[in-house]
Amino acid sequence: MSPPDAPPTEPVADRASLIEAIEAGSAADCQAWLEQASSDDAIHALAQLGDAERSALLSLLSPELAAEVLDLLPRSQAVDALEELDAPIAANIVEELWSDERADLIRELDAEDAEAILTELDEATVADIRKLTSYDDDEAGSLMHTEYLAFADHTSIRELLSELERGAEEYAGYNIQYTYVVDAANRLVGVLPLRNVVLARRTASVRDVMIADPIDVTDRASLDDVRALFKEHPFLGLPVVDTDRRLVGVIEAGDVARAEVEQADARYRQAQGIIGGEELRSMPLAVRCRRRLAWLSMNIGLNILAASAIAIHQDTLEAVIALAVFLPIISDMSGCSGNQAVAVTMRELTIGVTRPRDALRVLVKEGSLGVINGVALGFLIGLVAYLWKGNLVLGAVVGSALALNTLIAVCVGGLIPLLLKRFKADPALASGPILTTLTDLCGFVIVLSLASMVLQHLT
Amino acid sequence: MSPPDAPPTEPVADRASLIEAIEAGSAADCQAWLEQASSDDAIHALAQLGDAERSALLSLLSPELAAEVLDLLPRSQAVDALEELDAPIAANIVEELWSDERADLIRELDAEDAEAILTELDEATVADIRKLTSYDDDEAGSLMHTEYLAFADHTSIRELLSELERGAEEYAGYNIQYTYVVDAANRLVGVLPLRNVVLARRTASVRDVMIADPIDVTDRASLDDVRALFKEHPFLGLPVVDTDRRLVGVIEAGDVARAEVEQADARYRQAQGIIGGEELRSMPLAVRCRRRLAWLSMNIGLNILAASAIAIHQDTLEAVIALAVFLPIISDMSGCSGNQAVAVTMRELTIGVTRPRDALRVLVKEGSLGVINGVALGFLIGLVAYLWKGNLVLGAVVGSALALNTLIAVCVGGLIPLLLKRFKADPALASGPILTTLTDLCGFVIVLSLASMVLQHLT
Repeated sequence: MSPPDAPPTEPVADRASLIEAIEAGSAADCQAWLEQASSDDAIHALAQLGDAERSALLSLLSPELAAEVLDLLPRSQAVDALEELDAPIAANIVEELWSDERADLIRELDAEDAEAILTELDEATVADIRKLTSYDDDEAGSLMHTEYLAFADHTSIRELLSELERGAEEYAGYNIQYTYVVDAANRLVGVLPLRNVVLARRTASVRDVMIADPIDVTDRASLDDVRALFKEHPFLGLPVVDTDRRLVGVIEAGDVARAEVEQADARYRQAQGIIGGEELRSMPLAVRCRRRLAWLSMNIGLNILAASAIAIHQDTLEAVIALAVFLPIISDMSGCSGNQAVAVTMRELTIGVTRPRDALRVLVKEGSLGVINGVALGFLIGLVAYLWKGNLVLGAVVGSALALNTLIAVCVGGLIPLLLKRFKADPALASGPILTTLTDLCGFVIVLSLASMVLQHLT
Repeated sequence: MSPPDAPPTEPVADRASLIEAIEAGSAADCQAWLEQASSDDAIHALAQLGDAERSALLSLLSPELAAEVLDLLPRSQAVDALEELDAPIAANIVEELWSDERADLIRELDAEDAEAILTELDEATVADIRKLTSYDDDEAGSLMHTEYLAFADHTSIRELLSELERGAEEYAGYNIQYTYVVDAANRLVGVLPLRNVVLARRTASVRDVMIADPIDVTDRASLDDVRALFKEHPFLGLPVVDTDRRLVGVIEAGDVARAEVEQADARYRQAQGIIGGEELRSMPLAVRCRRRLAWLSMNIGLNILAASAIAIHQDTLEAVIALAVFLPIISDMSGCSGNQAVAVTMRELTIGVTRPRDALRVLVKEGSLGVINGVALGFLIGLVAYLWKGNLVLGAVVGSALALNTLIAVCVGGLIPLLLKRFKADPALASGPILTTLTDLCGFVIVLSLASMVLQHLT
């Protein structure tokens, strides 16, 4: 694949010629297509192939190239494609993937498909996969890869160098800026920067030039711990050890950053009501409808609950029909104010400047903002109501209802993620619906109760 | 700072003792506090200091340690702290930062403060800063750093090694997995993996063992291009050249991942209505109110516009007051459906599987989903309306209005980000308000027009 600044080609023609090559079953044409396409264009064309075409393409290509294609695909498509392939072909491709990428894919396969592929792989690879897939998403082990170089502590620099030379091809993609030094029981005893190797006498032992007692992280440590370590030290990689201090893998700074991208994406997705993992429009319609409806049908229930406050005060509304115009405005605006507060708390939780026990501080900060913004917005909407109907009392009712409800919304919005986090629930997922239900309900009750109190001045 | 699995200390006492050390003006106590705190606790405590305390702390510490503290702070606090410090002190700290981090900070300083700091720095550093700050946020140059090792093409391996040895301290934090080879005009001619150095004869020249014609990226290339290159090649770093192919910097894979985290965070923040950059509750109340209100007051205008559709159909609403209960439900549910579609398009744009010209495909995919979800949700809400009032026509009006408006919402939601992207506007920022205004307006018009058509069956 040529660099992306190659002269642009017409992508529609491109996809057509790729499909042609796939249908003709020509491995050479498929490979040629992939080599001439920029990876931008390749991603776009590959993602829009049909499932059958994608699988056909993967089985035509060499396992190495198929693995590269798999890396370009969105995760969910890569999983689907592997499931479609015959197990022996899928196994050949899986073998070419990096250990962490491989484990992530296997983890998401149907159990049956995963086992079928595992039976085709050699024992060492299977053991590697089983270990990596045994970690939870929020454990350091789930981020690590197992392609690293470790040497026994009695190795000489000369032996190390000849091993590097011998395995040059195998280690081609390894990050060997650091190699690791282990004792006879495979316990980590040192880290050996390649720089030290370069500068060492060839007869020295690795033990002489290594950095002893290196900083490491246990495989069951949390992602937050890993992130903190990388924030604290300018390391490119961090060795991962098990509870017996045996070296089991390496986490690179880039892996942590990628995990952060995934978390940030999930935050956005869940706030927008996309649940059950990412959705691509290439997924089956039934899956897309079902997932989106799961969220919407819960939401409609909460909406009906909130709107029942209107039904209860129907008499007031009937007497002052103009209020009906302001109900959706108050509901929407309070939701917006509350969502801003949710976003700020989510951000502060992520970067670690706020913790659940800081609730009081958040309340004070949001409360003071809520008073100011509430008065400003309430004045605005009150003015509109007054100008429209010429009724000062109507303006006062609508305005003070929005002011009060804005204050409630920002306080609730600021606190909800803290509460959810404290009770180990996912704040990105649940904050939105809880917030809007509460603020809708309060908003409707406040405006209609206020109105019923001063009904004689409104009619 | 000890690893995060050190025994937990009481953070409140912690912050108090830090403040005590700052107020006593004791550099040693401040340093001791930072050394014993985990970076988690340090971030939390530092972020909640007052502005004056933070600046006092930074001027007490050695420039090296102050630079580390600056790295732990959220960007906006780091900027504020630098602005508070006397220029000579700030300059000493700035000098200790990595080139890319330094440029990012200087870029965000007030012009006056930035110039004051620059006059305190040596010429080479100033030139470096001016170059890095000259790039736009979406240019490759804005991601690169200038700490790298480049050697003239006639250098011998022996000379290279002794230079590494000589500069060991200076290059301590450099990523020297790759060094770069340049000709007399500083044009990039090769990349030299440290692995090749290790295995080379010491009398060889770097030209003999380097990888010639390496893949590079120009400093004005777009972030998407850089991302595509890293996706295509398993590089840890990529040399950056200017239009004359002179080597000007290096981008590491981690830098790209960090830029992606920032973009994903911005997407979430903007979708939630936090504009003008990130908000922290430690910012002045006036700034927080003003920024949030800027968004809210635009939104309230759009809300009033949408609600005016209710005002126009007030007679219908007066005749069938039960409809007032359903207006906010229809408005909110359509907004939710539309936001789901926005999120899917945003995601597909980000990973490159959808482009603005794929609008028709998006329309077909969302349209078919919209019909199914619309019917399902419409049926639900229609049933509720029927059960509540025993009026089948009311159920039909409310249900079909929600069904139709769901269809409209998902189509509009799916397309808006594509349109905004095509016209170079920020899809994350503007999609939400445009969507909800349109769907509110359509929802209100549809339900009230339908109702007015069958008014005799509703009353």
